[in-house]
Amino acid sequence: MDSKVRLHVGQPVGAGQSVDLPREQAHYLGNVMRLAPSDTLTVFDGVDGAWRARIEALGKRGGTVTCEEQVAPQRDPPDLWLCFAPIKKARTDFIVEKATELGAARILPVSTRFTNSERVRQDRLQAHAVEAAEQCGGTFVPEVAALVPLDRLLADWPAGRALIFCDETLSDDPLWSESGEAGPWPPAPAAILIGPEGGFAPEERARLRALPFATPVALGPRILRADTAAVAALTLWQAARGDWR
Amino acid sequence: MDSKVRLHVGQPVGAGQSVDLPREQAHYLGNVMRLAPSDTLTVFDGVDGAWRARIEALGKRGGTVTCEEQVAPQRDPPDLWLCFAPIKKARTDFIVEKATELGAARILPVSTRFTNSERVRQDRLQAHAVEAAEQCGGTFVPEVAALVPLDRLLADWPAGRALIFCDETLSDDPLWSESGEAGPWPPAPAAILIGPEGGFAPEERARLRALPFATPVALGPRILRADTAAVAALTLWQAARGDWR
Repeated sequence: MDSKVRLHVGQPVGAGQSVDLPREQAHYLGNVMRLAPSDTLTVFDGVDGAWRARIEALGKRGGTVTCEEQVAPQRDPPDLWLCFAPIKKARTDFIVEKATELGAARILPVSTRFTNSERVRQDRLQAHAVEAAEQCGGTFVPEVAALVPLDRLLADWPAGRALIFCDETLSDDPLWSESGEAGPWPPAPAAILIGPEGGFAPEERARLRALPFATPVALGPRILRADTAAVAALTLWQAARGDWR
Repeated sequence: MDSKVRLHVGQPVGAGQSVDLPREQAHYLGNVMRLAPSDTLTVFDGVDGAWRARIEALGKRGGTVTCEEQVAPQRDPPDLWLCFAPIKKARTDFIVEKATELGAARILPVSTRFTNSERVRQDRLQAHAVEAAEQCGGTFVPEVAALVPLDRLLADWPAGRALIFCDETLSDDPLWSESGEAGPWPPAPAAILIGPEGGFAPEERARLRALPFATPVALGPRILRADTAAVAALTLWQAARGDWR
């Protein structure tokens, strides 16, 4: 059975495997969750599924657990990236949390002409992704990439990956094209690109529209905030092409 | 043209109509947005579309604007309610904001067995809905109802309204039933019900499943937080049955 207490660990998990916990995780188990040696929890390393582990030792400087039995197989999300222009801190944190829950495989902050935030704390966002994976019962943690300018992202775009960009100028068009039940959403490998609060600059939008691998989509008749658009687009892609079917 | 400065007002708007602004809105226009008499903004009353209005007077105790021309017709969302069990304050605020952006017609906080928060500040949540409508370019503000126990909500359920409840115990089933392109989503009038963080109690789930007007849906293989589930369910309903088509 999967415990309510779940930890992502930085060492491989497996039958009989001993795993060291850093100070912060030992503090969390002992002082926040009130666990003690011989209690069990769930650990996962992002690759080998989730394991029931028993606490061997718990101290101020760290702890040790031993893996006993696999309680869930590894489950990777579909090959879907979320590229987004960072916004205010709380909403950026929120996007990373939601992208992890909804099953993005990789999260890429992108700077655009109208992006206010020119810096992101990559380590902080990665920690948010880990926490979201722990909370949502996942076994996979998406990598949060370093901030990259939109120009460079597009110049280095990997062959064969579809780019879906949310274009608010389309918002009076119907959401679904004539392309059938799955709508305009191309299959994996794919990436969703969400612009900043001010939208894309006209030259950015023109460049995106001219790319042979890019598909514009509209998300309804109201203007969505960037964080709402990210959640809505991830949801619709998962339902049409991803692992929600 | 729709101004970037948008205000929901408590008096009817219309050609030549003079509208009084309370102190807070006058402060916002003058001190935050740095507007002055003869500048224009957009006002809407939730019923009569959006209007360009010119500032007549702006003072410490209030202000007056006069409506000049309708800049957007009234656009009501489909008849979709969002019923949800309140969670932590920031996430409850978030649900109200997102439900407004995504086009819910009415927002109903519901207390369930596992609901932690037994009180909600209805006026505060209503203010959040107003602010979200101002921001998202909407002309409609969903009403936030008073907190109601789930039992009472179901006992008084209006005839003819479908109830869609998100059932995490279904999460290994496919999202879409055999019912065709629109999936399991019943058409309007409908309501989405999101349980609390701890899920529905077994007897609540049994009662919901037995209701002839209720449809359970699953939202993918990961466990979603309540706020994520609300956004995902509203998005899928709008795309399948609402005004995103």
